[in-house]
Amino acid sequence: MLTTIEWTGSALRLLDQTRLPGEVVYVDLTTPASVHDAIKRLVVRGAPAIGVAAAFGAYLGVRAAVDATGDTADAALAKLDDTCRYLATARPTAVNLFWALDRVQRVVRGTGVPPVNTAAQATVAARSTGFQPVPDDASAIAQRVLQEAQLMLKEDAQICDQLGEQLLPLLLRHQKFDRPLTLLTHCNAGALATCGIGTATAPMYLAHARGIPLKVYADETRPLLQGARLTATELRRAGIDVTVLCDNMSASLMAGGAVDAVVVGTDRVAADGGVANKVGTLGVAILAKHFGVPFYVAAPTSSIDPHLPHGRDIPIEHRAATEVTRWGGVPTAEDGVAVYNPAFDVTPFELVTAIVTEHGVWKKS
Amino acid sequence: MLTTIEWTGSALRLLDQTRLPGEVVYVDLTTPASVHDAIKRLVVRGAPAIGVAAAFGAYLGVRAAVDATGDTADAALAKLDDTCRYLATARPTAVNLFWALDRVQRVVRGTGVPPVNTAAQATVAARSTGFQPVPDDASAIAQRVLQEAQLMLKEDAQICDQLGEQLLPLLLRHQKFDRPLTLLTHCNAGALATCGIGTATAPMYLAHARGIPLKVYADETRPLLQGARLTATELRRAGIDVTVLCDNMSASLMAGGAVDAVVVGTDRVAADGGVANKVGTLGVAILAKHFGVPFYVAAPTSSIDPHLPHGRDIPIEHRAATEVTRWGGVPTAEDGVAVYNPAFDVTPFELVTAIVTEHGVWKKS
Repeated sequence: MLTTIEWTGSALRLLDQTRLPGEVVYVDLTTPASVHDAIKRLVVRGAPAIGVAAAFGAYLGVRAAVDATGDTADAALAKLDDTCRYLATARPTAVNLFWALDRVQRVVRGTGVPPVNTAAQATVAARSTGFQPVPDDASAIAQRVLQEAQLMLKEDAQICDQLGEQLLPLLLRHQKFDRPLTLLTHCNAGALATCGIGTATAPMYLAHARGIPLKVYADETRPLLQGARLTATELRRAGIDVTVLCDNMSASLMAGGAVDAVVVGTDRVAADGGVANKVGTLGVAILAKHFGVPFYVAAPTSSIDPHLPHGRDIPIEHRAATEVTRWGGVPTAEDGVAVYNPAFDVTPFELVTAIVTEHGVWKKS
Repeated sequence: MLTTIEWTGSALRLLDQTRLPGEVVYVDLTTPASVHDAIKRLVVRGAPAIGVAAAFGAYLGVRAAVDATGDTADAALAKLDDTCRYLATARPTAVNLFWALDRVQRVVRGTGVPPVNTAAQATVAARSTGFQPVPDDASAIAQRVLQEAQLMLKEDAQICDQLGEQLLPLLLRHQKFDRPLTLLTHCNAGALATCGIGTATAPMYLAHARGIPLKVYADETRPLLQGARLTATELRRAGIDVTVLCDNMSASLMAGGAVDAVVVGTDRVAADGGVANKVGTLGVAILAKHFGVPFYVAAPTSSIDPHLPHGRDIPIEHRAATEVTRWGGVPTAEDGVAVYNPAFDVTPFELVTAIVTEHGVWKKS
């Protein structure tokens, strides 16, 4: 399996996902600016992976301050603030980015981690009894940020495993008797979006490992083709039966009864259960409802934003027209044509069968 | 406006639509084999244009027999049969292909045109009173086929105008008071699919010519991007406000209330009102129903197949995986990945607000 994200000991190593599936290229990043750029250009993408990358980006900012100022704690804390504010501007929709930056801030200042991630809370509690004072030298501050980023990377892999364990039995309930469990997914909520076996893909990897017959349909996911380039690639490399289709073909597929269940990831879930995810998810959810196909969302608790009441208020990133009008430098439309290119859409909770977290299932009563 | 199809006096001249929008290239075809290839490779596409191209292809076959055999009527008729059977294999879904080939056969053999096209019937009736005997020399047979092909080309332009007149008042009923009439279309049922101003685009051209404020959203229409490459190009050249979006973005667009009505073309309508059209149409129809957006189908009567009882029985062409996995030679997925690539889907009549022909409106009672 390809490694999405790792810490080399001195740099944040990312698989450059803009080059897949043609080339497997890793980049080593040592500055917050290069991490910001990597998130913005989708070198690293997927809500959980973005969060972990940002945490390492925060460390790289503090480390630079330590190197430059020679261990002034105030300078390190100021640099941490600046770096976190800066990295938070890389992309607006996935809440994991803000969650991760908030978490490293809190762990340095001794106020614990945000309440949404109870698994992480438990881990922090085990390490530290009571209040942790702010370290009084810059090196200790930097060290604490790095340790937290490394912990988040490790936890993310565990959360993926837990999501798989939660989702697989739910999905298996919908399997038809005479064929493999047949799932449709949109975009890439896979190993390439996380530090583990993915969120929506976690039950697929578990099913495959356990010898459960499985067939996956992957929407190609225009404009950047994360389904065709990433999901299909990682599942094929793992030996899973995967078929690519254009996004507009899923209605035809469902009309033929070919899909047992849909499972997707998310970039942010609002308090009303509204699910922001890669554009096209809303359409798949509506089709699933029309055809009576269950629709599951795999959501690590770090993707849940309890402070935002309504899904309709989730900020939606709009990206450049050229993402739609060119592919690999080849025009797909005339230059200068107007383009509508939102990166995400929001699926209301009434279209969702269940939102599944690493701790359990959130469904309509 | 680009000319989709014309008769040069000696050859069938087609705009090569596989080269758009980058290049405007015309090809002159003089053999049935080259016409078959042009239909199969989508040099010419769109149900009405395919029908007319096939009629000229039939003439090219008969002309070759005349040239080769020196005016043997039997040889010309045999060649007509062979050519029609051969051209009918170019693509399976659009019924206009079979309709057009049937029509040239009938006009030569004197039994008139198929009953579905009453406009053509009226024209033929005006030209010929009563039974027309089969011509007794090959040149006359060839001439009759050519005349019929030319008539079909001319009629197709008239039918487009009539479709526009039927559709425009229906669509204007749905316009919001404070903005242009805002339409969404899928694929290209435009001038480039016909010999006139298109089917689904006909009301757009009429509205524009009459100074009615208009905004069009064009689904890019994967995998071959007829919306981005063709619809957006022809509407822009005509000065119409058009915006391209990926197919998976129309749910987001409709959720925001941006679409007054959807209007699409069709490749075949079955007797139960089931509408075969470019893959993705079914999904758009389901979204339109979900969001309460009316969904219109522009259908020349030549697209209606009264002999096929059910939409589900319309043969659906499946095309090569490489259409999905490569764009302009650039990979969009790993080589060898499994692909689901139906060219069409079928929208049941219950999702359709009305099927609009050149003669009137077919809607649920």
